[in-house]
Amino acid sequence: MKRGTIPFFLCYPGSGPVRKIKLTVAYEGTAYCGFQKQSGSGLPTIQDALETALSNLAKAEVPVTGAGRTDAGVHALAQVVHFTTGEWAIPTDKIAPALNSRLPDDIVAVGAEEVAPDFHARYNAVAKTYVYSIYNRKTPSPFRRLYTCHVPWPLDTEAMRQAAKYLVGQHDFSSFQASGRPVKSAIRTIFGVDIGTDGSLIRITVRGNGFLYQMVRIISGTLIEVGRGKLSPDDLPNIIEAKNRTRAGETAPPQGLRLEKVEY
Amino acid sequence: MKRGTIPFFLCYPGSGPVRKIKLTVAYEGTAYCGFQKQSGSGLPTIQDALETALSNLAKAEVPVTGAGRTDAGVHALAQVVHFTTGEWAIPTDKIAPALNSRLPDDIVAVGAEEVAPDFHARYNAVAKTYVYSIYNRKTPSPFRRLYTCHVPWPLDTEAMRQAAKYLVGQHDFSSFQASGRPVKSAIRTIFGVDIGTDGSLIRITVRGNGFLYQMVRIISGTLIEVGRGKLSPDDLPNIIEAKNRTRAGETAPPQGLRLEKVEY
Repeated sequence: MKRGTIPFFLCYPGSGPVRKIKLTVAYEGTAYCGFQKQSGSGLPTIQDALETALSNLAKAEVPVTGAGRTDAGVHALAQVVHFTTGEWAIPTDKIAPALNSRLPDDIVAVGAEEVAPDFHARYNAVAKTYVYSIYNRKTPSPFRRLYTCHVPWPLDTEAMRQAAKYLVGQHDFSSFQASGRPVKSAIRTIFGVDIGTDGSLIRITVRGNGFLYQMVRIISGTLIEVGRGKLSPDDLPNIIEAKNRTRAGETAPPQGLRLEKVEY
Repeated sequence: MKRGTIPFFLCYPGSGPVRKIKLTVAYEGTAYCGFQKQSGSGLPTIQDALETALSNLAKAEVPVTGAGRTDAGVHALAQVVHFTTGEWAIPTDKIAPALNSRLPDDIVAVGAEEVAPDFHARYNAVAKTYVYSIYNRKTPSPFRRLYTCHVPWPLDTEAMRQAAKYLVGQHDFSSFQASGRPVKSAIRTIFGVDIGTDGSLIRITVRGNGFLYQMVRIISGTLIEVGRGKLSPDDLPNIIEAKNRTRAGETAPPQGLRLEKVEY
């Protein structure tokens, strides 16, 4: 009934083939300062937790590389990381359960598969999908607070859909980039933005070939302002054109965001 | 977008009628040592949090009485409490939002209504409904861990339904009572037990006129053992008849349980 009852696998180095592993991981980001290790800071990160569990399994240091960074408080349904095994005796299909008995409850290894030696979780990704969840009811919910952004005002989802259309395609998304992580180019391609509703939940699903720092949260904050009527859908072309962060809406809070899928 | 933006209500005592209020409250119990105040212990409880928020609103002590105690880690979708206002200026329909701006995020006042002066949240309750949620998949979910019990083995819900039928009706439920809270009589009436499924979720819904200490969790633990085949549905009559706690199944963990509804 509890994590502790998952079978314990004996896994010592020494008798298996060296493999490149693609590991899919789900996590609740609430307790973490993001995915990326912050060496020497002592701050808890998803990468640190994964490397600690893997090192415990391998009896050696095992660095992992993620498909993308998620910020502090952001979740993942299916983040992808890669790493190289030593000569472990453990079969590939037992890696995820063995890790789960060593990981904290808020991080779960969903599955592991062997991939080609040149596989790279970040460079080989062709698309990523993020979902931003809004709990759109006057009264907040204690059960939704960790996984949604509570918006008590009515939102016009049709206006949000109209606005979202302008984001699709290849654009310079400088207006939707937070400062702090300079990149060579702010040009990205968004393949689609979907606004779905499910009871009191509104989900903004954004699929693209890559995302700038806090880009999905700034897109979501901007679409929320459109939904409230503070911006018009037709303001979007000008906001994109301005290439100026101050023109877009507020950055929506991290707990509403999750990395949904990474495609290769 | 955030709790802090809910309008602040000015509420000073002195110019309104004294009222008896029935307040409906939702909470995530993870961070609390149960509903009931444990005077002098310093342990956080739901009752303490409600009384602190009410006292802040009323500028005076306001004791609250709950429909029932929930244990440490147990949640509520609609717990009911009553209290008596002083001569507050605040209208009844503004009590819930005013409390929400004073309560922590994991406790939400859902609604307040004025009731007759002799209303009592516990004594007037004619039925309570509890829901026990099981996440029944091999791999756990980081997003379900706080609100479900993870059971990795397949469960036979049809056998659980067969077993549940024996619990319905008026019985001495001594076999389903944890020690620690002696009561005069262990006779209770269960109006219905429903086993519902929704994807990987199995929900055990129990409606009754009253419940013994940890009764729903022991019922749930017993039904899980039936689902796994460790007990047979036809063991239930003997377990009930034995009036002996050791005969029933394990006590299922608290995070799977929520108080769903209190009827008057």
